[in-house]
Amino acid sequence: MRRYLLTILALCAALLSQPTHALTVERWGTVDIALQGPAEGNPFMEVELSATFSQGERRIEVTGFYDGDGRYVLRFMPDAEGEWRWQTHSNRPSLDAQRGSLTATPASAGNHGPVSVRNTWHFGYADGTPFWQVGTTSYGWAHQSDALEQQTLQTLAHAPFNKIRMTLFPQPYEKGGSDLRWYPFAGQLPKGWDFTRFDPAFFRHFEQRVAQLRDLGIEADIILFHPYDRGRWGFDQMPPEVNERYLRYAVARLAGYRNVWWSLANEFDLVKSKTMAEWDRYFQIVRASDPYHHLRSIHNAFVFYNHNQPWVTHVSVQSGAIAKDPERAVLLRDVYNKPVVYDEVKYEGNFRQRWGQLKPEEMVLRFWQGAIAGTYVGHSESYTDPQDLVWLARGGVLRGDSPARLAFFRKILSDSPAEGLNPIDKWQDYPFAGKHGEYYLGYFGTATPTAWPFALFRTGLKDGLRFKVEVIDTWNMTVTPVDGIFEIRKRDDYTYVDKDQRSITLPGRPYMALRIVRVPSI
Amino acid sequence: MRRYLLTILALCAALLSQPTHALTVERWGTVDIALQGPAEGNPFMEVELSATFSQGERRIEVTGFYDGDGRYVLRFMPDAEGEWRWQTHSNRPSLDAQRGSLTATPASAGNHGPVSVRNTWHFGYADGTPFWQVGTTSYGWAHQSDALEQQTLQTLAHAPFNKIRMTLFPQPYEKGGSDLRWYPFAGQLPKGWDFTRFDPAFFRHFEQRVAQLRDLGIEADIILFHPYDRGRWGFDQMPPEVNERYLRYAVARLAGYRNVWWSLANEFDLVKSKTMAEWDRYFQIVRASDPYHHLRSIHNAFVFYNHNQPWVTHVSVQSGAIAKDPERAVLLRDVYNKPVVYDEVKYEGNFRQRWGQLKPEEMVLRFWQGAIAGTYVGHSESYTDPQDLVWLARGGVLRGDSPARLAFFRKILSDSPAEGLNPIDKWQDYPFAGKHGEYYLGYFGTATPTAWPFALFRTGLKDGLRFKVEVIDTWNMTVTPVDGIFEIRKRDDYTYVDKDQRSITLPGRPYMALRIVRVPSI
Repeated sequence: MRRYLLTILALCAALLSQPTHALTVERWGTVDIALQGPAEGNPFMEVELSATFSQGERRIEVTGFYDGDGRYVLRFMPDAEGEWRWQTHSNRPSLDAQRGSLTATPASAGNHGPVSVRNTWHFGYADGTPFWQVGTTSYGWAHQSDALEQQTLQTLAHAPFNKIRMTLFPQPYEKGGSDLRWYPFAGQLPKGWDFTRFDPAFFRHFEQRVAQLRDLGIEADIILFHPYDRGRWGFDQMPPEVNERYLRYAVARLAGYRNVWWSLANEFDLVKSKTMAEWDRYFQIVRASDPYHHLRSIHNAFVFYNHNQPWVTHVSVQSGAIAKDPERAVLLRDVYNKPVVYDEVKYEGNFRQRWGQLKPEEMVLRFWQGAIAGTYVGHSESYTDPQDLVWLARGGVLRGDSPARLAFFRKILSDSPAEGLNPIDKWQDYPFAGKHGEYYLGYFGTATPTAWPFALFRTGLKDGLRFKVEVIDTWNMTVTPVDGIFEIRKRDDYTYVDKDQRSITLPGRPYMALRIVRVPSI
Repeated sequence: MRRYLLTILALCAALLSQPTHALTVERWGTVDIALQGPAEGNPFMEVELSATFSQGERRIEVTGFYDGDGRYVLRFMPDAEGEWRWQTHSNRPSLDAQRGSLTATPASAGNHGPVSVRNTWHFGYADGTPFWQVGTTSYGWAHQSDALEQQTLQTLAHAPFNKIRMTLFPQPYEKGGSDLRWYPFAGQLPKGWDFTRFDPAFFRHFEQRVAQLRDLGIEADIILFHPYDRGRWGFDQMPPEVNERYLRYAVARLAGYRNVWWSLANEFDLVKSKTMAEWDRYFQIVRASDPYHHLRSIHNAFVFYNHNQPWVTHVSVQSGAIAKDPERAVLLRDVYNKPVVYDEVKYEGNFRQRWGQLKPEEMVLRFWQGAIAGTYVGHSESYTDPQDLVWLARGGVLRGDSPARLAFFRKILSDSPAEGLNPIDKWQDYPFAGKHGEYYLGYFGTATPTAWPFALFRTGLKDGLRFKVEVIDTWNMTVTPVDGIFEIRKRDDYTYVDKDQRSITLPGRPYMALRIVRVPSI
């Protein structure tokens, strides 16, 4: 799993100053260039290190980080094949003006590069592959025992999710919880943290988990702050200068992984110690610190952040009701003109809290309704457990009935037009998304129709176009072709119908969908 | 109706330079101070005139306007009682350094001052009276014959509306239409407009209508641009410098009326000739030109403007589906944290177009659903007519069945807590707005329940509080008290119920509402 993480321990700075190393890394892989430097004093506070990576006219400025024991690391992710040269800048002579080069080889199979915004409301990998977000959340999975973390990775390897929300800071759990193996800062309670020193072991472990997710093809939506500390460690109440140092250190360490997304916070408005102006500034620090421009968002409880701000790449929202129908879900898409991810729409489970007691059918419904609105939805699970082994909080195994249906859902998505699903007629109730004239995905939710009169909204249509239809049972995971071809005729100002006025027969069950795809004319 | 519009024709500038006039105007009334100045050349382009109105330390800068025939006007609306002094500034000696004073008397009955934003999501008059927006739209009513305009005013005098959307530029009508009495600019077609000269007669007429609305207690939401010109006059395609001059002139003339609101455009995104940057700039010109800070908004077709911009005071939105349930309607409130007015939610009528064929029940439902979401809704009417006398376009009479119900609705609103209705539990479906612990207004829409188990969301509640209940039939316009008092007990983490588990009996009809008001404890 560390095959992309090539670490060169350069024990001799003199050697490093000569570009003689045959360093190779695949495109969008991660390479660490390690330099030996001063260990005395407080290197976290006193030593500055960065490097310019260049290829032809291109320049990428990478901030190094101190990894303990006199070891300094430049972590680089090349976004183009070929030779890259680098040269360091430092306020310490032993680290300054070091030079070297590396070769970026073609990306290996399954490496599509980082995800970014595409077509206003959608996502795509750097190699052009669409990214159809089917996310889950397990806040603290990377702060558990090795055995439990391995189990989580094993679960994820067979789960339908291509993104996971996870916190960088640990969370205490309801029943108290035991001490963790490591913490982001040096020091310990009750004596207190040394906020001027990070604990590299904590970050090395966290990075390993991020890299393992990458190797599973899963994006890591890293939550940089959260309000759940509850006075245990105080990581939610650090002074602004500590927050800023923490952000720069975390970004320097993590930005080199192609699967990283930045989530400034979970339920930011519950972090009572920070003002809106601070959130704005933290966003801008992350943006300025990250040479790879990973996706940036922030997640709310009751107050919406102004996602129109230019440093927000996509909308990440919690709402109990918004994904229950597409007319609700489409609204934030229209407001922000950015990709919209409803990362928290309540969770499948049996918790007493109303946010954690969705039936699996309701969880799956929200993914479909979100997709019909041209948006994306997130899953998690909150089933009670005697050991408090809850997926949402700690990972482990999935027990619910929604993941299998979400795998089916993801397959349907990935067979859709690569430019993304967009509402066909968002102005009034018409439960179809797709691409005008070409592809229509409809979803009837909890309605139980026994027939659907074939009717398409006017845009992109003309008399004589021909379509085939499949009936999809989203719960029972079946796709059933409908006999025959539907040829359309204009009916009125808004609608084209089958020329023979045919309807599609439906089984009178809930959670049914339709896929209507244009076929060539005769 | 012109009783507040005191016009002093100062024929002698020398006289005006001495503050000897016993000018009086009521607080928030409109006073015109007229000065005689140069009529030669092009005064619209060449003569600058403004005045500083002062009272103690307060200063209000008012831009004057040229009204033709050598007449220049400073139109002033005092916002405080007592003496105001004024002094002019001009690039023409005969208009410069003129001085005078006036006395603002107490506001008369029915004069509550201008409306502004209050309590984040609501509106209030300057004297503290709540403004419960119940709006209508008649785009071109002030561009009709005198007889038809008088009929419209007569209709409005007995209608439930306290705001009307109306265009400053005229609209051509489907069947061609005849020439208008006057146009905003000098010149005529086909020869062309002189965009360097306004026609004061056009504006004097328009202002008279605005003042008549004011005297009826109706806010004039003046639409400054619209996309409906269709090549007839070209007012939607003027060069930017003409647009800017037009805005400044319109604001100089109209800002002195307390009932003015600025709507930058109707369906701004259909005005294809203007860029988003232009809209931003026009907003800022209006803001900078208006010394009274009247409300400012912009109305969309398919693309939402960024209502988070600081120059937008409240959200004005068209959407076919958004006001159909409160969980949709609440979303823009949460996004923008400003008052939200759904000015166009389709119209009552029988048009072929789907935006103009609401049944009256559906029109009224949208007002109620909007209110339950803590937002506001707009009405209009689109019934076909042999003479094209459609309320939406030209005014005249109202034929629909919704206005009577909207009068009833407005009465219910005005009996609600003065701070405004806010959602009681916006996080999931719970169709109540009000004030926690004090006042609950619930609405069941098209559902037809026969009973409602008395249950209130937890915020602001404790065991033993007592409530009385009324059943409201929003369509048949009845309010029926429920016998007895409901005393609450905590049931679970989220809910308080009647201590005797009682339910409210409902008639199994749609469009029913509940009003639940706290009564003193024993």
